[in-house]
Amino acid sequence: MSDFCDKDIELLIDDHERTMKGMYEILKTIDAPSDVKKLSEDKLEILANEMREALFNRLTKIGGHFGPNFGMVETTIAMHYVFESPKDKFVFDVSHQSYPHKMLTGRRNGYINDENFAEDSGYTNPEESEHDFFNVGHTSTSIALAAGLAKARDLKNGKENIVAVIGDGSLSGGEAMEGLNIAGEMESNFIIVVNDNEIAIAENHGGIYKNLKELRETKGQAANNIFKAYGLDYIYEEDGNDIQKMISLFKKVKDIDHPIVVHIHTQKGKGYELAEKNKEYWHWTMPFDRETGVPKVSFGEGESYLAMTVDYIFEKAKTDKDFLVITPAMPGALGLTAEQRIELGHQYLDVGIAEEAAVAVASGAAKNGANPLLFTNMTFIQRAYDQISQDLCINNNPVTMVMNFSSFDGLTDVTHLGIFGLAAFTNIPNLIVLAPTSAEEYLNMLSWSVEQREHPVMILIPGNQVAHREADLNYSDINTYKIEKKGEKTAILALGDFYQRGEELAEAIRKELGYEPTLINPRFASGLDTDVLEGLKKDHTLVITLEDGILEGGFGHKISSYYGASDMKVKNYGLNKEFYDRYDPEALLREVGMTTEQIISDIKTM
Amino acid sequence: MSDFCDKDIELLIDDHERTMKGMYEILKTIDAPSDVKKLSEDKLEILANEMREALFNRLTKIGGHFGPNFGMVETTIAMHYVFESPKDKFVFDVSHQSYPHKMLTGRRNGYINDENFAEDSGYTNPEESEHDFFNVGHTSTSIALAAGLAKARDLKNGKENIVAVIGDGSLSGGEAMEGLNIAGEMESNFIIVVNDNEIAIAENHGGIYKNLKELRETKGQAANNIFKAYGLDYIYEEDGNDIQKMISLFKKVKDIDHPIVVHIHTQKGKGYELAEKNKEYWHWTMPFDRETGVPKVSFGEGESYLAMTVDYIFEKAKTDKDFLVITPAMPGALGLTAEQRIELGHQYLDVGIAEEAAVAVASGAAKNGANPLLFTNMTFIQRAYDQISQDLCINNNPVTMVMNFSSFDGLTDVTHLGIFGLAAFTNIPNLIVLAPTSAEEYLNMLSWSVEQREHPVMILIPGNQVAHREADLNYSDINTYKIEKKGEKTAILALGDFYQRGEELAEAIRKELGYEPTLINPRFASGLDTDVLEGLKKDHTLVITLEDGILEGGFGHKISSYYGASDMKVKNYGLNKEFYDRYDPEALLREVGMTTEQIISDIKTM
Repeated sequence: MSDFCDKDIELLIDDHERTMKGMYEILKTIDAPSDVKKLSEDKLEILANEMREALFNRLTKIGGHFGPNFGMVETTIAMHYVFESPKDKFVFDVSHQSYPHKMLTGRRNGYINDENFAEDSGYTNPEESEHDFFNVGHTSTSIALAAGLAKARDLKNGKENIVAVIGDGSLSGGEAMEGLNIAGEMESNFIIVVNDNEIAIAENHGGIYKNLKELRETKGQAANNIFKAYGLDYIYEEDGNDIQKMISLFKKVKDIDHPIVVHIHTQKGKGYELAEKNKEYWHWTMPFDRETGVPKVSFGEGESYLAMTVDYIFEKAKTDKDFLVITPAMPGALGLTAEQRIELGHQYLDVGIAEEAAVAVASGAAKNGANPLLFTNMTFIQRAYDQISQDLCINNNPVTMVMNFSSFDGLTDVTHLGIFGLAAFTNIPNLIVLAPTSAEEYLNMLSWSVEQREHPVMILIPGNQVAHREADLNYSDINTYKIEKKGEKTAILALGDFYQRGEELAEAIRKELGYEPTLINPRFASGLDTDVLEGLKKDHTLVITLEDGILEGGFGHKISSYYGASDMKVKNYGLNKEFYDRYDPEALLREVGMTTEQIISDIKTM
Repeated sequence: MSDFCDKDIELLIDDHERTMKGMYEILKTIDAPSDVKKLSEDKLEILANEMREALFNRLTKIGGHFGPNFGMVETTIAMHYVFESPKDKFVFDVSHQSYPHKMLTGRRNGYINDENFAEDSGYTNPEESEHDFFNVGHTSTSIALAAGLAKARDLKNGKENIVAVIGDGSLSGGEAMEGLNIAGEMESNFIIVVNDNEIAIAENHGGIYKNLKELRETKGQAANNIFKAYGLDYIYEEDGNDIQKMISLFKKVKDIDHPIVVHIHTQKGKGYELAEKNKEYWHWTMPFDRETGVPKVSFGEGESYLAMTVDYIFEKAKTDKDFLVITPAMPGALGLTAEQRIELGHQYLDVGIAEEAAVAVASGAAKNGANPLLFTNMTFIQRAYDQISQDLCINNNPVTMVMNFSSFDGLTDVTHLGIFGLAAFTNIPNLIVLAPTSAEEYLNMLSWSVEQREHPVMILIPGNQVAHREADLNYSDINTYKIEKKGEKTAILALGDFYQRGEELAEAIRKELGYEPTLINPRFASGLDTDVLEGLKKDHTLVITLEDGILEGGFGHKISSYYGASDMKVKNYGLNKEFYDRYDPEALLREVGMTTEQIISDIKTM
């Protein structure tokens, strides 16, 4: 009892919103979806309001996905009211909209109690709850994942409902359309809820969105229907933010014996005027002030690699009419605003969430004389691994790919890690992977790459603070490393944004070990400078590699293999081949033993 | 003049078919598409016959894609009659149907002269001709590649026609549907020829094929139309094998100012009764006897890894009702016949050409208690790199992926190489990549993997002749290498189907260098057995790694890095990071210095 009182008092002090009498009165009674089913119509409405308050509580303080969750409150309540989760199984696409689901499945404390925030990831997560089936953070996967659940159910003669929830924005991804196509051939229960809020992160792109508009305007009656064309049954509900309408809709389709698309219209950001008006800005938010909408964390007084990329784009677009900027629905990866996109006009092409086609379009455009610059986050370009290999690199077309969040020190959710980029892309023939160490080098590499006509190039945007160092203008001499400081005994190959760590290490060696090591900026992550490497054999006995990513398949391993049969010792520093999740970046470096102190200690023992 | 006569005489002697008076009379006049335009209606018909004869000439002797090319003769003639290639640009999806195009663009000799066969690859190839824009061998890429050509044309205010040709089978691939979606938003000339011959390699799978059928049955008039749902204009032609109808159709759409789908119905294999009747068998052929259809090369009296996989599948399916076999449209990767697929019933799922969704479906099915075995060729599973990472491995679901043609000694076309598998998949966390060395080991690994519930597993089907060696039953102890012969000084880590080369090397060391080396079967390509590796330090000074794939990102590099800071010398043997094309396998091994003789010589100099 005293525990209970203490906790209550703590809450009263900690959180002014909860001092309001009755705050979260209903939500606090929801331990499981069965509790939702007990509520009267009125209480369900109150629950919806409380859930929005709980969203505000978490998002104003720690940020997260805003618009998708505010729009899905009513539909999620109706889902849990009608279906029997976890026997009935929900799969939320990209899981940007899964917070209401989390609140109703035993995880409300992650929203109403500040001290519990860290318990819940921003995505569905089977480790948190039996109501989640997949850890999901990439788009367009829900239909195929759910189709797999359904297929296994059928093998077992199960009768549960399988429900995939997918936003309109995610439909443009190939995997989603493959999923629709597979569903169109299924012959058992399968429910695809298309949550149509008329927008992806930014505006939607692609022909199907004309059809979705037609379907909305005709209340689902248009003769031409993308979902029916995929062989699927179809039903439409205009007001996806009306709990009772959604309950009666889900009652209609529950236990259906064939696949059906439930197309619902919801309002992204519903319940917060600012978000309803500026949907793109409020897709995801930093901690913010609820009154004003102003972020509590301030960024960007200083320089940023993203801002200088945008400056480069505008300068280049003015002078080169063949310059073409392509993104698979991630203008935000560089912070390109809606106004800037309009200003770029035909020199900007957003292909929608469609990484595969984005790379193919870029390759085709380069082949026909354009100078394409493709950008997105590193974690998403993985989706085009085969297209980079086949459509682009076999054909050796001059496309420049600029990858944001290529660093361990960026997005730390397991589904969004940038640390696999070196492993994925430095082993594809013909692809030049450049790892710049400073603003000057980054911009020079960018200019060189966009202008040359010989190679597909990927440039890793540094994940650390903007640094300034002189840099070469021309990178045509492929796989040439730069010896920044010539020393002896130990050579440090410090790749890309780990160059500054290399400098720090060199300084520490000088101070603590009493000699001047050689410091090398490899620049080319995808190849060896055998002249430089061979030259080191003369007066060096140890090569240290530092890289921002997992070691397996990356840069350092190539160096180790090169020296394997020689007397040169090589020690690779980088991350382990692991799916790290929500880690502290500096703690992770300590964990893998790559602080300057740890490396110095290693050298001493070697 | 005398040259001309000599050549004529040579031809008469070399090729009995050409001794027929008038053989290839028209085709021999076609040096470029402009020559097609000069022909009368009658002559065009004769040309079509001659082209089929030329296809027979090549395919009976060296094999290749049969059905798609025989079906596209008339349409290709009409394309070149109406459009102005290469100003107008054609992109052939997967390019299985591009032989007629090659014949009409200066490459007829690759079909009518046996000595010229090797000049032409089986795919479109910009190195061969200015009429080809991409080297293409994976499906579903044409629309997006062509959209890129169109985008660049628009930036340059060009007016040429851009034409993508895609088969119905390829439409189920996500990249194709992403391409349709992008095309649906374009506002300039873009022509998508959908060559509907009612079949992929095997039967089509997916809901859209119901719509294609509806469209064929209504001669394109059905209200519900997948292409219109993508926002595209649409026109249908029932007889894609009628040159004149196709000419008038293409005249209608030439210079159109917006994107349009030209849906044509053709007969796969047209002109060869056996192929018209058994479309799946005749998609691709070995050299064959034209009279009987019987292959000239005989296979498979002996054992094969594919046949034993099929035997395993049937045995397992009988006793385990949760066992599920999944393929993305590649039943032929194991040689599963139509009858066998029917026999497997609900335990067999072909998702169509859709590698991404195949992996997601498998992950979902495993999550819900099924035991999925997914199979295809290594080159195609690259298309699901992100799904293997995100949908499968982050979620750590027990899916078994069996990869055919994972070896350098299999498919040698640049677009179909299996040599990148180790680089792509041994660096993804949680994924166990197993490299068996014998039939017993392969089957034991397969059984173990399908039955365990802990890991996603990829098994590389050996590319060499079936070998027999005893093998463990259980592989739960992850990353345990097997010391097959304990020796001294040199340890050979011979991975997977290179194990037998390791045995040969061990024997040569014994004979030529006079000591017994240690021979190790690593089994696990994706991880290190640090106990074994550490143990080798006692009485070994050299570790040799042998692997069937490129070195970069693969197995040997991991070993080199492990030993980098120690006194152990390591030499990695494998292929270079290169897009090899149509190579001689044994010559390639010599080129990279990995014959037993070359390795012995290396050891001597070390």
